[in-house]
Amino acid sequence: MERNIPQISLQRMPLYLNFLKGTADRKYVSSRHIAEALGLGEVLVRKDLAYTSANGRPRVGYVTEELVSAIEECLCCNGRRNAVIVGFGALGKALLGYDGFIHYGIEMVAAFDNNPARTGVLHSGKPVYAMGELSVKIKEHGAELAVVCVPAGAAQEVCGLLIDCGIKAVLNFAPVTLKVPDGVQVIQIDVAANLAILSSSIK
Amino acid sequence: MERNIPQISLQRMPLYLNFLKGTADRKYVSSRHIAEALGLGEVLVRKDLAYTSANGRPRVGYVTEELVSAIEECLCCNGRRNAVIVGFGALGKALLGYDGFIHYGIEMVAAFDNNPARTGVLHSGKPVYAMGELSVKIKEHGAELAVVCVPAGAAQEVCGLLIDCGIKAVLNFAPVTLKVPDGVQVIQIDVAANLAILSSSIK
Repeated sequence: MERNIPQISLQRMPLYLNFLKGTADRKYVSSRHIAEALGLGEVLVRKDLAYTSANGRPRVGYVTEELVSAIEECLCCNGRRNAVIVGFGALGKALLGYDGFIHYGIEMVAAFDNNPARTGVLHSGKPVYAMGELSVKIKEHGAELAVVCVPAGAAQEVCGLLIDCGIKAVLNFAPVTLKVPDGVQVIQIDVAANLAILSSSIK
Repeated sequence: MERNIPQISLQRMPLYLNFLKGTADRKYVSSRHIAEALGLGEVLVRKDLAYTSANGRPRVGYVTEELVSAIEECLCCNGRRNAVIVGFGALGKALLGYDGFIHYGIEMVAAFDNNPARTGVLHSGKPVYAMGELSVKIKEHGAELAVVCVPAGAAQEVCGLLIDCGIKAVLNFAPVTLKVPDGVQVIQIDVAANLAILSSSIK
């Protein structure tokens, strides 16, 4: 298993994957070609791809199909992990219905909300539970990943509850920096902040 | 104006801002305190904050309120920029209704979709237009930023149309690497890929 890939290399794997899937008609692809297309250094790309099980050949490059499989393997696309969403507002709803997770072997199995008007129903065929059922249902569904879509003021408390339920990795959309114990991974996606960074870059 | 901040420092500014807003009850805050809370190096934090107009004092640190204002200034929070959304599926709808952009001085003014069943209406008080109106309405609303929420197969074409309309910065949610000319900024948010990275990190 490819467990010793640095986080920074791992973060570029989806970039490569998306690019390669868009050029699947080419039988071979070189690290130079990938580097140029993505605006990255060639040495960097070659180093990243060396963490995968794919073997590049001199003057030919990688067999595209093999490289796609090798990157997918790094990203656990061939495994299976279940994830839950906490906070069933508009964003939670959008993510529960999104079909892009399954490409990475991740199934979004359920959502949770503290508003009774939103729970006890199925959305996109998936159940929406009350927060009181968090522990029981996370175990029942065997979920290991969670997506936090609650307001900023509630995110830290929700994160603590999730960790108590055994969740080991959290994707956080709330604009707040979550404190987590060692061994728990968090990635934050602050949509407004990213748009602000873009806005600041306009001359 | 703070125009020469490296992108990498700019990307950390929202982290500082979110943290500081959560500790607004403290009159002073030191770069060491910020660094420890966010798990960053103290030298790095001090360098980043030196790009702002805030002045830290030895042994006391920054006046929290002043530092917040200075970071907000970097991120154009006190300016005003208009943004549009292209692709009015569940994610586009969630983002049109999200109220977090205004903290950064960004107003989401309208959405566009190529499905007539979704257009010609107001959502969250904002108009949803047909794609044919893109050019006219972007000019009319004075939009400079765009958020791309269309399927992967349509994203590059939509991006080209937006650039033709004068858009200078694109936040892209489609899992595809967009090609843009020099002078146009893109940030990609690949939600599924981020969850995959987390999934790979679970032992």
